[in-house]
Amino acid sequence: MSDRLSAREVRRHKWWGWGLDDVTFRYDNKPAFPALAKNKVGVDLDSKQPVEPVLADHEVPASLLPEEARAALVEIVGEDNLLDDDEYRVVHSFGRSLPDLFRARGGRFERLVDAIVYPASEDEVARVLRLVLEKDFVLIPYGGGSSISGSVTPDVAERRPILTMNLGRMRDVLEIDDTAGLARVEAGVYGPDLEEQLNALGWTVGHFPDSFTYSTLGGWAATRSSGMQSDKYGDIEDIVRGLRMVHPRGVAVTKPIPGRDSGPSVHEMILGSEGRLGVITEVTVQVHRIAPVRQVIAYMYPDWEHGIRGMHAIARSTDVSPTFTRLSDGPETEFSLAMVKEPSSTKGKVAAKVQDGLFSYLRSKGWDTTNEMSISYVCFEGSKAAVEQQKAIVKKIVKQAGGITLGSGPGAIYDQKKFDTPYLRDFLMNYQVFGDVCDTGATWSSINEVHAKAFEAFYAVQEEQGLPGFMFCHMSHSYHAGACLYFTFAFPYSTDEQALEQYYRAKSAVQQVFVDLGSTVSHHHAVGTEHQPWIVEDIGEVGAGMVAGLFADTDPGHNLNPGKILTP
Amino acid sequence: MSDRLSAREVRRHKWWGWGLDDVTFRYDNKPAFPALAKNKVGVDLDSKQPVEPVLADHEVPASLLPEEARAALVEIVGEDNLLDDDEYRVVHSFGRSLPDLFRARGGRFERLVDAIVYPASEDEVARVLRLVLEKDFVLIPYGGGSSISGSVTPDVAERRPILTMNLGRMRDVLEIDDTAGLARVEAGVYGPDLEEQLNALGWTVGHFPDSFTYSTLGGWAATRSSGMQSDKYGDIEDIVRGLRMVHPRGVAVTKPIPGRDSGPSVHEMILGSEGRLGVITEVTVQVHRIAPVRQVIAYMYPDWEHGIRGMHAIARSTDVSPTFTRLSDGPETEFSLAMVKEPSSTKGKVAAKVQDGLFSYLRSKGWDTTNEMSISYVCFEGSKAAVEQQKAIVKKIVKQAGGITLGSGPGAIYDQKKFDTPYLRDFLMNYQVFGDVCDTGATWSSINEVHAKAFEAFYAVQEEQGLPGFMFCHMSHSYHAGACLYFTFAFPYSTDEQALEQYYRAKSAVQQVFVDLGSTVSHHHAVGTEHQPWIVEDIGEVGAGMVAGLFADTDPGHNLNPGKILTP
Repeated sequence: MSDRLSAREVRRHKWWGWGLDDVTFRYDNKPAFPALAKNKVGVDLDSKQPVEPVLADHEVPASLLPEEARAALVEIVGEDNLLDDDEYRVVHSFGRSLPDLFRARGGRFERLVDAIVYPASEDEVARVLRLVLEKDFVLIPYGGGSSISGSVTPDVAERRPILTMNLGRMRDVLEIDDTAGLARVEAGVYGPDLEEQLNALGWTVGHFPDSFTYSTLGGWAATRSSGMQSDKYGDIEDIVRGLRMVHPRGVAVTKPIPGRDSGPSVHEMILGSEGRLGVITEVTVQVHRIAPVRQVIAYMYPDWEHGIRGMHAIARSTDVSPTFTRLSDGPETEFSLAMVKEPSSTKGKVAAKVQDGLFSYLRSKGWDTTNEMSISYVCFEGSKAAVEQQKAIVKKIVKQAGGITLGSGPGAIYDQKKFDTPYLRDFLMNYQVFGDVCDTGATWSSINEVHAKAFEAFYAVQEEQGLPGFMFCHMSHSYHAGACLYFTFAFPYSTDEQALEQYYRAKSAVQQVFVDLGSTVSHHHAVGTEHQPWIVEDIGEVGAGMVAGLFADTDPGHNLNPGKILTP
Repeated sequence: MSDRLSAREVRRHKWWGWGLDDVTFRYDNKPAFPALAKNKVGVDLDSKQPVEPVLADHEVPASLLPEEARAALVEIVGEDNLLDDDEYRVVHSFGRSLPDLFRARGGRFERLVDAIVYPASEDEVARVLRLVLEKDFVLIPYGGGSSISGSVTPDVAERRPILTMNLGRMRDVLEIDDTAGLARVEAGVYGPDLEEQLNALGWTVGHFPDSFTYSTLGGWAATRSSGMQSDKYGDIEDIVRGLRMVHPRGVAVTKPIPGRDSGPSVHEMILGSEGRLGVITEVTVQVHRIAPVRQVIAYMYPDWEHGIRGMHAIARSTDVSPTFTRLSDGPETEFSLAMVKEPSSTKGKVAAKVQDGLFSYLRSKGWDTTNEMSISYVCFEGSKAAVEQQKAIVKKIVKQAGGITLGSGPGAIYDQKKFDTPYLRDFLMNYQVFGDVCDTGATWSSINEVHAKAFEAFYAVQEEQGLPGFMFCHMSHSYHAGACLYFTFAFPYSTDEQALEQYYRAKSAVQQVFVDLGSTVSHHHAVGTEHQPWIVEDIGEVGAGMVAGLFADTDPGHNLNPGKILTP
C-alpha cells in the first residue's frame, strides 16, 4: 500500500472550470478554429475580450458546520484531512455541469458545502456516516467532481450542515488476482492513477470515459459510467464485478463471482445509486492484459446514413469485435477538421496535401466534403495477425456500406481531442458562449430518426430564441441492439440573466426528443438533478416507485445525497 | 397472434415427476448402465422392483378457494381457464426439486394450491392480482414449474387461499425488430415453442437451459436462468433487454435500450425476483441470425486439472469466442461413457472399436482412462471459414494444456443427453435412489479448490451417514473471471422416513463448501426456499436487508409468492 496523500495533495479542479488552473484550451495552433467560432456561434475571437473569473470578486458565506461536529470529524480523519477554506468549499459545491460552472463563475454561492472530509479507510468512512446520521447532516460523495448532471451539487434550499466526502486519498490497487483477472481497488483512485498502477504490472481496465482524468473508480460505479472502449471492455456494469459500500446498516458487499446475485441484484442497486444508498469504498474490476498491438483506423462515408449502415454491419458481424467503433456526423466531422493542429513537420505538411487531394477527388465523385461526409474511427487490439485480419474484414464492410478507408494517419485527430473537450467549454464560456453535451441510447432501428429529430428540435428552439447555434453528433458505444448518440451543441447566450433559461430551453428540447422516441434520457451521464425531469418517463412510474422505496428504506432521514435521481 | 390455447392444452408435467406421462428414462439400449448403477449406488436393476406412484393412492384435500372468489376469477379468465381438479392442483403445488417430487410421490398433500388461473392477457393478469390483494390471497407465478429450488411451492403453513398463475396461454412472439435484433414475446412461452416461432423466421435466442423443454421465458427472467450456450449468447440478464411486469402499483416497464437504467437498475430488481414483485408478462429478448455452421468438437484431457488449464486458456484467448465450453471431470466422463447407447449401425460399431483403440493407446501413455480422464466439448458457430479457424486455434490450446482432440464424432454423446437428465432422476427415485444437482460460480483461481472440497465434503458426509454415493461434476458457462461448476450426486436413501434428512445432509455439505470458499450459493438455480439457508452469506446482511426493503415496499401484505428468496 502506498503512503497516503494528504487532502491538499489530491488533484482538484480549478474553482470555475475543468481541470488544473494552468491547463486551458489554446487555438493559436489551430488555424481553422477562429473562422469556425465566428461562422457557427458568431464569436469574433480577435475582437471580443474573454472574461476569466476571479474568486476574490465574490463573497463566500461562512460554513454552517458546528464547531463541536467539526472537532468530531477532525478526530476521525485528522486535522489535515478536513478542509473548509473558501476555495475548497467552492470547488466541492459544484460539479462540472454547465449550470454548475455558470453559477460558480458568477459567484452564486447561496449555499456551499460546509466542509470536505477526506477519509483514509472504510472505517473512517463508516464513522463519518454514523456522525452524519446522528446529527442529521447531509453527506455528498464527491468522486472526482466531474458530474455534468448535478450529482454532487448541494441543494441550495438545504438548511442542515452539508459535508462532501472526497475519497481521493483512498487510491491503492490492493490486490490483483492474476488467474481470475480481477483487481481489488480503493474507490477514490482517479483514472490515470489506476491505469498507471495496473499498466506497471501489465494490466489494464480499459475504461476511458471522457472524464477520465478527473473521475474516480467509485464515481464511475455510482453513476453507471461508460468508457470509449466499451465495445470491447464493457460498460462499468460489466467491468465492476464486486463492490463494498458503507450503508447506514453496515457494509454492503457484493462478490466478484460469475453468476453473482441471488434474487433482485444488490450489485445493480448500488451501481448508479449516486450516493443515495451509501458510499462505495472499494471496487473489484476485471483487468485485461495490455494488447500487443493497438491501431485506430479512420474511414470516411459520404454521409451519416451510410456511416450508420457501416456501424450496424460491424456490430452484426460475428467475425469482428473491435475495441471501439465511432462515427462522427457531417457537422462533427467539419468541427474535427477545424480543430486539427497546423502541421509543423514535413511529414505533416505532406499528409495535409494528400488530404486536400483526397477531398477534391471525393467532391469529383459527388461527395459533399463540407458538412455531410462523416468520419469514422475503429480501434483494433490483439495480436498483429488478429489485428490485420480484423482490419481487412472491416475494410470490406465499410466499402460495402459506401465508405472508404483513410488509414491510421488520421487516427491522430482522434487521439488529439480525446480528453480535451471540457477545456474548450470553459474557453467558450469566457466569451459568453455555452457549449454542452447530451447523450442517449437508441436502437439501430431508431437511431437515424433520433439523430434527425434532435437536430430539428435544437435548431427550432434556437430560431424561437433568436439565437445562432451549432450542433453536431457522434455515435459510439456499439451494442447488439443499438448504440449511443452523443450530441454537442454551442450557442452564444444573450445576457447573464437569460443565460440559463436559454440553455435549458435548448437542452430540454433535445432531451424531450430522446424520451419521446423511446430512447433513454442519458446513455452514461447519470441522473443527478439535471435529468430528473425525464426520470419517470425513462424508468416508468412503477419503476421510479420501486427506486423510491429502496431509498426510503435505506435513508428515511434523507441524509444521503438527498434530491439526486429522485425527489425526495 | 396465434389462437389462444385453452388451459388444458398447455403442456404440463406428470404429477410425480418431470415431463410428459409417457416419456421416461430407458436403459435397455445402454449396456454399461446397470453395472454403473450397481457399482456406484448399490442398486441391482435386475432384481429390485421399481415403484411407480399412483395418484389414486393418496387423498387430496379440498380447495380453500371461496366460491365467490372462484366466480370472480372465472369472470376474469373464463370457466375453462381456471382449473381446480385434483391432478392439476397436485401438479402445480410442487416444483421439480428433489424434496418437492419426493413429497408429491409420497402423497404429502398437507397444503396444495387451491386453484390455477390461466390468464390470456396482461389485463387479466392485473385483474387477478388486484383480486388477490383485495381478498388477501396468495399468488404464485408458475413459469414452467421446473424450479428445483422451491420457487413455485406453496408454504404448507399458509392458511390464506393460494392461487397459482400459469401463463402458458400467453405464448406469442408479438413483434420482431429485424434491425435492432429484438423480439417482443409473451412471457408464458416454453423454450421449444419460442425457438420454433423464431427459427421459422431465421432467428434464435440461443438460450438453452437444461430445463428448456419445461421452462418459460418469464420463468427464466424471474429466476436468472443460464443456458448452456451462455458463452456466446449470454445469461438471461444479457439476453433480456426489456420487461413488462404487473406490479401492485401498475405495470413496470423497462426499455430494451442500450444504456438503459438511470439510477439503481429497476430491470435488475425484476430479474431474479421470483414473483415477489409481481408477474412478468412480456419480455423483449435479443435475437440472432442462426449461424450457417455449428459444430461441437470433443477433446480429452488426462485429468480435471489439465482440462481446467485448457478451459482457462480458451477463456483468456482474445482470438476465439466459442458458443459453449464444457469440461466433465473424471467421474462425469465415466458416467457419460456408461450412458452411451449400444451402437447399432456398422459405422457406430467401427467408431466404438476406434474408441477402444484410442483408450488403450492413452493408457499406454500413462493416462487413467477409468475415472480420471476428462472429456470436454466446445461448440463453434459462424461461417465455415470462421469455424475452421477457431477450431484450429482451440486445437492448439488444448494440446498446449496436455489434451487431445477427439473430433466431432463424440459430439453425439453430448447431444444425446442434452435435456434428459431429469427423467433419469425420476427413474432412480423409483428404485429409492436420490439423484440431484448443485451449482455454483467460482473464480478461475478458486475453481480447482471448490471442485476438490465439494467432493471431500460429499463423501465425508456419506461416510458419516453410512451410505454409498456417487458424485461427478462439469464446468460450463465460462466468463472472464471464472465459470460455473455443476455437481451431480446420487445415493440410495435408507427409508422413506430418513430420506429427506439424508438428502439435506448431503446437499448442505456441498452448498456450505461453496459459500465458505467465497463462491455463490448457486450459479443459475435461483434461491426459492432451498437456497435460503445461505442467502445472507451469499448477498450479505446489508444486501439482504436492501432486498427485504424492496419487497416490503412492493408487497406489505406478503401476498406475492411469500417466503421465497427471503423470509418473510
